Amino acid sequence: MPHIPLDENLPGITGLLNYRQDTALPIRQLTQILLRGESTLTEAERELIATVVSQGNECKFCTAAHTAAADVLLGERETAEKVKHDPDNAPVSQKMKYLLEIARRTQSDARTVSTELVADARDAGATDLEIHDTVLIAGLFCLYNKYVDGLASVTPTEPAFYDRLANILKTSGYMPSANRYASLNTTT
Amino acid sequence: MPHIPLDENLPGITGLLNYRQDTALPIRQLTQILLRGESTLTEAERELIATVVSQGNECKFCTAAHTAAADVLLGERETAEKVKHDPDNAPVSQKMKYLLEIARRTQSDARTVSTELVADARDAGATDLEIHDTVLIAGLFCLYNKYVDGLASVTPTEPAFYDRLANILKTSGYMPSANRYASLNTTT
Repeated sequence: MPHIPLDENLPGITGLLNYRQDTALPIRQLTQILLRGESTLTEAERELIATVVSQGNECKFCTAAHTAAADVLLGERETAEKVKHDPDNAPVSQKMKYLLEIARRTQSDARTVSTELVADARDAGATDLEIHDTVLIAGLFCLYNKYVDGLASVTPTEPAFYDRLANILKTSGYMPSANRYASLNTTT
Repeated sequence: MPHIPLDENLPGITGLLNYRQDTALPIRQLTQILLRGESTLTEAERELIATVVSQGNECKFCTAAHTAAADVLLGERETAEKVKHDPDNAPVSQKMKYLLEIARRTQSDARTVSTELVADARDAGATDLEIHDTVLIAGLFCLYNKYVDGLASVTPTEPAFYDRLANILKTSGYMPSANRYASLNTTT
């Protein structure tokens, strides 16, 4: 049960963003810019960064949500699964492997993002902006993970819930809109 | 040396917020609402939350900056020092002691913010919104700490630097403004 009263039809982050909408707006705007704005990283690659950070923080809601978002953007479930559990053999570019490692280290202890790792990422083709955005996306998802779990928001167990949420994230992005979550709790 | 090219006159977070200003704006707006907006927590109390989270992440820049901000708002240096190093005996309310513990747990492992701790905070007078804001401020400062250290931004060692920064944060808050950091690097 959440630590504060939240709309029970809005689990995970959705109820929190609804609880205090003035703080939700800049969080949503930042996420929209970083995950859906112009970038040399694909939307799926950026969702994979969100996924590994959420996995590192053991935030079940966010890990499931962003795994599903990466899956729906990629049209398959293998990549996110491998990135989470067998990263060396994940079907992503060498550049992405280094960026995902930068994201993991930013999550666990940001001081361990080493000059050598950044040089490896750059040698594999990563730009300064990609390195910057990887670290900032990792920081943003630490905010989300801690917001979701620190207030004990509800984590649905039904996988189809996350597929519905992922479709909203694919088609509408991260900004608020009317009836945004209308399809979230349909069980048909 | 930072992992990406940053203005060397803008150490710590200041150079990062200048590097990518479109993402900086919602980060600044969120911080302004949470740390300077209307609240039943004082500005100093909210800076103390930022301080203990930054301390937990061992982010030297942010710890020094928000310690200095709390100090300048309180007009003394004892409270922040005690909150960091002898929290049981810090001269803050019992409610604040519980909220600071919620912030610490949100930083270290958000899943450890227990129903019992939240009940204790509430018994000591904390409102739902104060509990919410404490967790979200803790999440936001995890973002800041990881942004600052994940990109290896420069940490000034001179204490007077943080006093100058704290005065900017006290008088101007967190939003961008012309010549915001004009007084930051004066050594007189």
